[in-house]
Amino acid sequence: MTSERAPRIAVGPARDARFEQAVVGGGGVPCGFEDAPDALIWTTGPDGFPETLPPSVRWVQLPSAGVEYWLSQGIVRDHPHVTWTSAAGAYSATVAEHALMLLLAGVRALPAHLAATSWAPETLAPSVGTLRGATVGIIGAGGVGRALVPMLATLGAHTLAVTRSGRPVPGAVETFPVERIDEIWPLADHFVISAIATTDVERLVGAAELAAMKPTAWVINVARGDLVDTDALVAALRSGAIAGAALDVTDPEPLPDGHPLWTIPNAVVTPHDSNPAPLRIPAYLEHVTENVTRFASGLAPSPVIDPSAGY
Amino acid sequence: MTSERAPRIAVGPARDARFEQAVVGGGGVPCGFEDAPDALIWTTGPDGFPETLPPSVRWVQLPSAGVEYWLSQGIVRDHPHVTWTSAAGAYSATVAEHALMLLLAGVRALPAHLAATSWAPETLAPSVGTLRGATVGIIGAGGVGRALVPMLATLGAHTLAVTRSGRPVPGAVETFPVERIDEIWPLADHFVISAIATTDVERLVGAAELAAMKPTAWVINVARGDLVDTDALVAALRSGAIAGAALDVTDPEPLPDGHPLWTIPNAVVTPHDSNPAPLRIPAYLEHVTENVTRFASGLAPSPVIDPSAGY
Repeated sequence: MTSERAPRIAVGPARDARFEQAVVGGGGVPCGFEDAPDALIWTTGPDGFPETLPPSVRWVQLPSAGVEYWLSQGIVRDHPHVTWTSAAGAYSATVAEHALMLLLAGVRALPAHLAATSWAPETLAPSVGTLRGATVGIIGAGGVGRALVPMLATLGAHTLAVTRSGRPVPGAVETFPVERIDEIWPLADHFVISAIATTDVERLVGAAELAAMKPTAWVINVARGDLVDTDALVAALRSGAIAGAALDVTDPEPLPDGHPLWTIPNAVVTPHDSNPAPLRIPAYLEHVTENVTRFASGLAPSPVIDPSAGY
Repeated sequence: MTSERAPRIAVGPARDARFEQAVVGGGGVPCGFEDAPDALIWTTGPDGFPETLPPSVRWVQLPSAGVEYWLSQGIVRDHPHVTWTSAAGAYSATVAEHALMLLLAGVRALPAHLAATSWAPETLAPSVGTLRGATVGIIGAGGVGRALVPMLATLGAHTLAVTRSGRPVPGAVETFPVERIDEIWPLADHFVISAIATTDVERLVGAAELAAMKPTAWVINVARGDLVDTDALVAALRSGAIAGAALDVTDPEPLPDGHPLWTIPNAVVTPHDSNPAPLRIPAYLEHVTENVTRFASGLAPSPVIDPSAGY
């Protein structure tokens, strides 16, 4: 009868009781960086990441969902014998909740209601819509897009998904491969852009796409600002080509003071805080416990970073 | 072999092609008020309702969910041999969607975000909360409250319900009878007041209840304005006793110009338009078709109005 020893896991750049607790919860033993750890749980950005990992380290867990910066710095590439995992997926639920909040607030005309200082159902009520029976196009069905599907379904909305491959997304009425993305603009009632941030995705929404949408459409972007052509969006909001837009990410980002998106009534901007620190830390702690549990059981932690794919 | 004839159904106060279509869809035959109808589908308020119904009428369908005014006018009481049905339930989904929108917008600090004209995650992000893992108290689990439970569940929120009887509400972690309502105020993170509007429900939320809530709580009212003590609510919002309130119904209603709720930053007011006409008519048409189907099959249409219960 063999018994594997519990893995020794360091937390960096600094020891942190919450993360050591998460390590213990997954069956690991917290140790220092100098104590020949089997794995490293990193809790901050790339600054201060050690140039050389101890040779005992077989797995490194990074705290971000998008790892472009880590890849561009060559840190992953320099350690090919280590399994690197991101936190992609750990934050999907909160970002999806934010997207749903923005979509619901738009469709039910909350911005106009908040601007009102008088009881005026005769002007406001006609602008209140519903997601019930509506079709929502989810552009990029990674973790966030997939988390949105059941949220929309309980509200009676239908989902059309666009993914790179077009492989059916569970719960979506139909999934289009990205080559057929142009079919979706006139078809769906509203859009949530939740494409995984990778370097090879081109701008998705420009003047032509906005013109093809229904004039009642709301466009929500929680993915990356440059997936939408900001000037074309401002023009579409001003002309009434679409009903509104709610952006958690912008181009440029940060959105400068005085930009028209701050004052256009049917534009909503949240400053990339769909996954704010107070929500991020507990979600990352949960992710760490899950992955330590897998590692301690001899399973591979996930999701493993693939430098050639960019995530 | 007997074959029942299709029921003859009048639409009032005026014939309306959409409603006659709904009658046909349920297996009925549209007819005029003077053509000895078996049933009457009423499409507007009580004004103009006939003082005397043709003796052939066995069923009357009313278009509203709350029927207090119809009862107070004695119209139902004057026709005891007729089955009266309301539209309670038909609008539950849209009102529940509105309540969810208001709750999400509050919890994720959308009012503060909409007021911003500058990219300020450092001030805004700390106020972004989540329904994930939160406990929502649903006060009054009629159609709206019951429709909310699965919407909250897909967002990872837990539900505590309060009902008159305390009989378990499907999907709720626990259901309290109204006698134990005071236990819920410190227990839940947020509250949705969705009590059925009846004359025997007292004011539910006053100064003591607001003081017992968590300072992070949002209170949503989509039921009836006088269930909340408005002055106590204004005081609680100003003192920070609770985080915010979103009201689709107010006391007084309409909320007068210049009322503090129009300008308190963490107060959201929608002018009783959670179920606006553009959404109400298709929902009522669906309800009519369902009930005509039941009536044509010899089943009782529903929900039957109980004058002694007040709904």
